[in-house]
Amino acid sequence: MSDTLLNTINNPIDLRTLSENQLPQLAQELRSFIIDIISRKGGHLGASLGVVELTVALHYVFNTPEDQLVWDVGHQAYVHKILTERKEVFHTNRELNGISGFPKRSESIYDTFGVGHSSTSISAALGMAMASLLKGEIEKQHIALIGDASIASGMAFEGLNHAGVTDANLLVILNDNAIGIDPSIGALKDYLTAVKEGKNPRQNNIIKSLNFDYSGPIDGHDLPKLIAELKRLKKIKGPKFLHVTTTKGKGLQLAEEDQVRYHAPGKFEAKTGKIYPKNEDGLPPKFQDVFGHTLVELAKQNEKIIGITPAMPTGSSMKYMMDAFPKRAFDVGIAEQHAVTLAAGMATQGMVVFCNVYSTFLQRAYDQVIHDVALQKLPVIFCLDRAGLVGEDGATHHGAFDIAYLNCIPDLIIMAPKDEMELRNCMYTAQLGLEKPIAIRYPRGRGETKDWQKPFEKIEIGKAKKLKSGTKIAVLSTGIMATNVEKAIANCSNSEKVAHYHFPFIKPIDENTLLEISNTYEHIITIEDGVIIGGFGSSVNKYIIDKKSPLSILNLGIPDDFIEHGSVEELQQICKIDVKNIINQLNILLQL
Amino acid sequence: MSDTLLNTINNPIDLRTLSENQLPQLAQELRSFIIDIISRKGGHLGASLGVVELTVALHYVFNTPEDQLVWDVGHQAYVHKILTERKEVFHTNRELNGISGFPKRSESIYDTFGVGHSSTSISAALGMAMASLLKGEIEKQHIALIGDASIASGMAFEGLNHAGVTDANLLVILNDNAIGIDPSIGALKDYLTAVKEGKNPRQNNIIKSLNFDYSGPIDGHDLPKLIAELKRLKKIKGPKFLHVTTTKGKGLQLAEEDQVRYHAPGKFEAKTGKIYPKNEDGLPPKFQDVFGHTLVELAKQNEKIIGITPAMPTGSSMKYMMDAFPKRAFDVGIAEQHAVTLAAGMATQGMVVFCNVYSTFLQRAYDQVIHDVALQKLPVIFCLDRAGLVGEDGATHHGAFDIAYLNCIPDLIIMAPKDEMELRNCMYTAQLGLEKPIAIRYPRGRGETKDWQKPFEKIEIGKAKKLKSGTKIAVLSTGIMATNVEKAIANCSNSEKVAHYHFPFIKPIDENTLLEISNTYEHIITIEDGVIIGGFGSSVNKYIIDKKSPLSILNLGIPDDFIEHGSVEELQQICKIDVKNIINQLNILLQL
Repeated sequence: MSDTLLNTINNPIDLRTLSENQLPQLAQELRSFIIDIISRKGGHLGASLGVVELTVALHYVFNTPEDQLVWDVGHQAYVHKILTERKEVFHTNRELNGISGFPKRSESIYDTFGVGHSSTSISAALGMAMASLLKGEIEKQHIALIGDASIASGMAFEGLNHAGVTDANLLVILNDNAIGIDPSIGALKDYLTAVKEGKNPRQNNIIKSLNFDYSGPIDGHDLPKLIAELKRLKKIKGPKFLHVTTTKGKGLQLAEEDQVRYHAPGKFEAKTGKIYPKNEDGLPPKFQDVFGHTLVELAKQNEKIIGITPAMPTGSSMKYMMDAFPKRAFDVGIAEQHAVTLAAGMATQGMVVFCNVYSTFLQRAYDQVIHDVALQKLPVIFCLDRAGLVGEDGATHHGAFDIAYLNCIPDLIIMAPKDEMELRNCMYTAQLGLEKPIAIRYPRGRGETKDWQKPFEKIEIGKAKKLKSGTKIAVLSTGIMATNVEKAIANCSNSEKVAHYHFPFIKPIDENTLLEISNTYEHIITIEDGVIIGGFGSSVNKYIIDKKSPLSILNLGIPDDFIEHGSVEELQQICKIDVKNIINQLNILLQL
Repeated sequence: MSDTLLNTINNPIDLRTLSENQLPQLAQELRSFIIDIISRKGGHLGASLGVVELTVALHYVFNTPEDQLVWDVGHQAYVHKILTERKEVFHTNRELNGISGFPKRSESIYDTFGVGHSSTSISAALGMAMASLLKGEIEKQHIALIGDASIASGMAFEGLNHAGVTDANLLVILNDNAIGIDPSIGALKDYLTAVKEGKNPRQNNIIKSLNFDYSGPIDGHDLPKLIAELKRLKKIKGPKFLHVTTTKGKGLQLAEEDQVRYHAPGKFEAKTGKIYPKNEDGLPPKFQDVFGHTLVELAKQNEKIIGITPAMPTGSSMKYMMDAFPKRAFDVGIAEQHAVTLAAGMATQGMVVFCNVYSTFLQRAYDQVIHDVALQKLPVIFCLDRAGLVGEDGATHHGAFDIAYLNCIPDLIIMAPKDEMELRNCMYTAQLGLEKPIAIRYPRGRGETKDWQKPFEKIEIGKAKKLKSGTKIAVLSTGIMATNVEKAIANCSNSEKVAHYHFPFIKPIDENTLLEISNTYEHIITIEDGVIIGGFGSSVNKYIIDKKSPLSILNLGIPDDFIEHGSVEELQQICKIDVKNIINQLNILLQL
């Protein structure tokens, strides 16, 4: 690598010493660098390959970090990271104690705003730009780089709507590649596509109507054009909008051809892009696939079933339902708020709606869950994928808060199945017709059971299960924590004394079983893969306090900190909800 | 009233027996009816006066309740309520056990979707329309009626963006009166105004770009025109959009002239519209005014202070800051998500941002509080007005959940001042420069202290206050519950034995004081005007459980139910957080 241009570039100041005609070579080297590392280590690929030229041009033209660049979502920011003093540590991407897969303020002064969830960039950059105006820093540039999937989200519209009536020195760059993780959808996407195809007169476009100085669309892989246009825009004050067209996965043929698969392809052959065949035979299924296949199975029997996903057909496996029943399953784009209230509207008409939202993204629709669903007791079925620790995506993506933020909502049932079969049966039971909304949370990744596709069984609402008897200690787990608990009990110093209860229902909590427990044991351990504050354990605490029971209780779960990235196993250790720590806690109590 | 047309109308079926030329008279009678009752009983006035003709026309043309009408926000739905079997009970509007001030499914089959918060109507009506398509009910009409302030919110855009790519039989009616509670703002509003003034060619408008069949603008007070246009639109399939211009407060001159004041004017003289002078001399201030005036006071000393309100300049009293420092205070429209992330962006530049959001509306920006503010430890100062029970606005508007949903967020400080002076000092302390975000919650309405404008005092972060000594029972209150507790202790059977601790900080909770309490008393009562689950009491429970203290604890707060409308006093009784119930609980414990 010693002869490369990239070898000479540590930060944007170095970059700006290059001549413009050296930049295409640098772009090529950046692509190779990213492909080389991601092919071996995994991570997001396609998005960053699509913005190599745009990133180079931005740091070349603008005076970063003085000028402020905000990346929307941030999985396209690898080029930015490499160009801003993180080339040497890029191989630690998404690893424990390595760099984050997303821009992060604490990591670099070039990361002006931490991201992970979509559509925040316009608001954040506008805030910076308005602050600069107030501080008299009128030359300072503020740039939000946002994709066409993200800009269709309501929050982005709110930012545009406000920016258009300010004098803020804001440049919004639309990176229009017609795809998010899955292909973009919606009327705005159709409109932008028409613009790109020259079917809409530029002078009357939506963006211009919102009072932006609109330019484009221009080819986002054409460095000279990009640089010229950015230089021109740099001189214009007020809100500006540049429409750039790019190709996701650019420069790696297979990634261009299958953009969904190459969003985060796992390990692959750097030279050809060929993804190494994964031997998945005999592996237990992913929870998302249990959801996806089960939904199709249920939809065959129950014609009122509808599926909704906000932009995650692949990630949630809603795509199976979309393939099997295209008229009954909908990708609504990055629009969690809309997804939830759309589901509520359908539920008023007797539809049985499975609204699948990642736990962390349901935070975006919290008000709608309360105000539009629970307050009206509409029996929407929320399936919360990626609940608990998600691993490498890190702090922005853990489904850590859902139990706490849902537990306080009246009339909402909250379930956390312990395995694949129970997830199936939760879904089966929910669609039989509850008179209340229900949230079913389950984790990212695979379970432990291969033979999961068993006949459906109805679950009794609010009932806990005694999985193992004991005498001294009762471990109360919810969700997949049952597995860690089972392993821990099997390996503690005196298993006979330890009972294990699984609570598939966090709400309503099984008070009969809690009464039995409070009458039987000396110690309780509660364990959940969610925040301790306001979580499952807090409901157990409340019961024991109300009963004035003398039991001791230990609450295990995610502590009151944001948990960073790493493998799920590593993060479980940090949170002390791993098998080893449970064993330790059991042994301490057993010795009392 | 026996000779009136209105007297013959109990529901839309009756309405449809009238001839078209009788409708203007009916409209006039409806106005008088509303003015008569609201002038005596209070409630929302201007919005309903503005849509009298539109409401009559909708129920006249469409086959409600078969055809489905969704009102956005719903404070304009009084005419609808009167025309749909609630004329005789309309005088109970917003009273305990009376009808709700908002559409509510459990109240009437004509209320197809419960509302209160803005911008949900398009998503809800689209859900209904998509369900109807699936059920083969192709003649069924689905109408969302939304104001120009609400349609600028991101959620509404998400609904439009999705609707535009469906075949759903959806009619969106924009009730464009250029005002929400306060005047509308934003680029879309400017655009719509230009359209109304004939400055934008209709065929290229934003709505048409989103694939809607657009018509208008038409005069929303012209019944024949409205009826003709609605009849025409009824025959058109797919997503349609009708732009209607109305005047808020129409028909009551003073209400037309001062639309902000007459949104909910309180009692007034029906004939003239003259608001009865309120004798507010010597009354304690509203908490919102303590916020508003204090912010100006602080902003004079600290030039980094900025104020942000999402569409509540009057309700939050942010207007004082907007008047005093127009360049440093911003109404961003109904855009809570944007408001929070805009604040975060400004905070990255060293600005001290007071972001004032009603407690119930912060639910709209929950993800942004977690992901954009707390995760980055940005010291945004959230002022949560209308925290706790809000009274007559009811279930959609109580600030019941904020403690629970904020308590689980790492690095967030949560304060609940007990009175006006403490609110001032919270604000003063926050702007001195914390390294974390802070949420300060305070209630709707007035406090109890007239002489509140005292010199600022810095508050020690995380410190509780012992307000009264005792021996047997410690009452731990947060926020304004201190007042009820003080009154209760003064009136219980043995005041000497009862101590009172006020916790201005819900998080971090004062563990030193909790230790002192756990070592001193036999019983604890916690009390808060928020939900018990996950609330302040649950933090106390957790501490006592962790310490294995033998104390008994009673948690008082809002129970696990949605609380309806009524006076704050009545609702406190329902929640058992009123003075009388606290006395009862104290007396029970004192007898043990």
